[in-house]
Amino acid sequence: MAQLLRVQNFTVSADGFGAGSDQSLDRPFGHADPGEMFAWAGATASWPGRTDSGGSRGLDDYLTRDFTHHIGAEIMGRNKFSPQRGPWPDLEWRGWWGDEPPFHTPVFVLTHHDRPSFTLSDTTFHFVNGEPAAVLEKARQAANGKDVRLGGGASVVRQFLDADLVDTLHVAVLPWTLGSGTRLWESPDELRERFHLDVVPSSSGVTHHLFWRR
Amino acid sequence: MAQLLRVQNFTVSADGFGAGSDQSLDRPFGHADPGEMFAWAGATASWPGRTDSGGSRGLDDYLTRDFTHHIGAEIMGRNKFSPQRGPWPDLEWRGWWGDEPPFHTPVFVLTHHDRPSFTLSDTTFHFVNGEPAAVLEKARQAANGKDVRLGGGASVVRQFLDADLVDTLHVAVLPWTLGSGTRLWESPDELRERFHLDVVPSSSGVTHHLFWRR
Repeated sequence: MAQLLRVQNFTVSADGFGAGSDQSLDRPFGHADPGEMFAWAGATASWPGRTDSGGSRGLDDYLTRDFTHHIGAEIMGRNKFSPQRGPWPDLEWRGWWGDEPPFHTPVFVLTHHDRPSFTLSDTTFHFVNGEPAAVLEKARQAANGKDVRLGGGASVVRQFLDADLVDTLHVAVLPWTLGSGTRLWESPDELRERFHLDVVPSSSGVTHHLFWRR
Repeated sequence: MAQLLRVQNFTVSADGFGAGSDQSLDRPFGHADPGEMFAWAGATASWPGRTDSGGSRGLDDYLTRDFTHHIGAEIMGRNKFSPQRGPWPDLEWRGWWGDEPPFHTPVFVLTHHDRPSFTLSDTTFHFVNGEPAAVLEKARQAANGKDVRLGGGASVVRQFLDADLVDTLHVAVLPWTLGSGTRLWESPDELRERFHLDVVPSSSGVTHHLFWRR
């Protein structure tokens, strides 16, 4: 069985932005409000951050439920891991996710700046430099036969799409615009030549775009 | 975490039948053609019967992909297990699925007629008599903390619905009628009082009905 590279639950505004402008420690999504952006996912029973037994179990839940399913590693961009730029000022910053990150696998953080690996609960973060294909190869080896999740942000997804390395891509498109920020696409139609596409409106207001390689 | 009772990938005709009339050894779905009924599922990459690496990875695949996910046991009716009726004529019949049944868990077959348990690969079939709640309790214990799948047929799903034991229900409604057979419902609206419902049309022609308990 092939090891796929999968983008999951990636959420963009109606105008194609995966995050707003001006990311900072207080505003990991810049001027976009992550609570609003991910409200569709947060309402589901399978949202990794959920601590009660409630939540919806309809269409949106099938998408969030799939987050860890048959995933053996994640690749993410430096800006998803940290608001810091340039050389690591210290090793204090250990991601946005507290002591129990929701990944439960090796995570490969793309960065030009060396940093030793470290482990939080059952997630180990590695810091890697290199071309997308080489990083994917490392992640596949670590994934132990399972698939690899491409975690974003938008510019990293774009980079792996441009290198034609992405096998499946789930993008939830919000019913409102952001105006500026980090762009995934001008329009989902850009990918139709290379991918099949199911467009599935949800009762939550987002429209799920499910792409798989032709 | 609660152990849910889940109905998955249950397919009915537009007029609500889960199988046609006159089930027999040659025709496990009676006058209905299972190849046509399950074409939507058979086209997906995650269909358990698939032996090649092809198949779609859009909406329908999210549904078939979920088949074994967090499932620890199945309950099925006698008529799903066998075309035979009444006392077991012999122990030769071991289900429709060959030496590698797609369940990979304990399976509880509802029957009024005693029969010893047996194991095929990693699936063990038990034969049980009793009220739905009592059978569900047995299946939950066997499921070891995971959910229980209610595998059908239609009359068994109906029986557990009537006992208010079903937590989530995925029914794929076909775009054509069968006219007669084993009925799941007159209309999905029958369940709206007790369940939330997402109605999701698929590009394959089926309309997924995703119910979860209110």
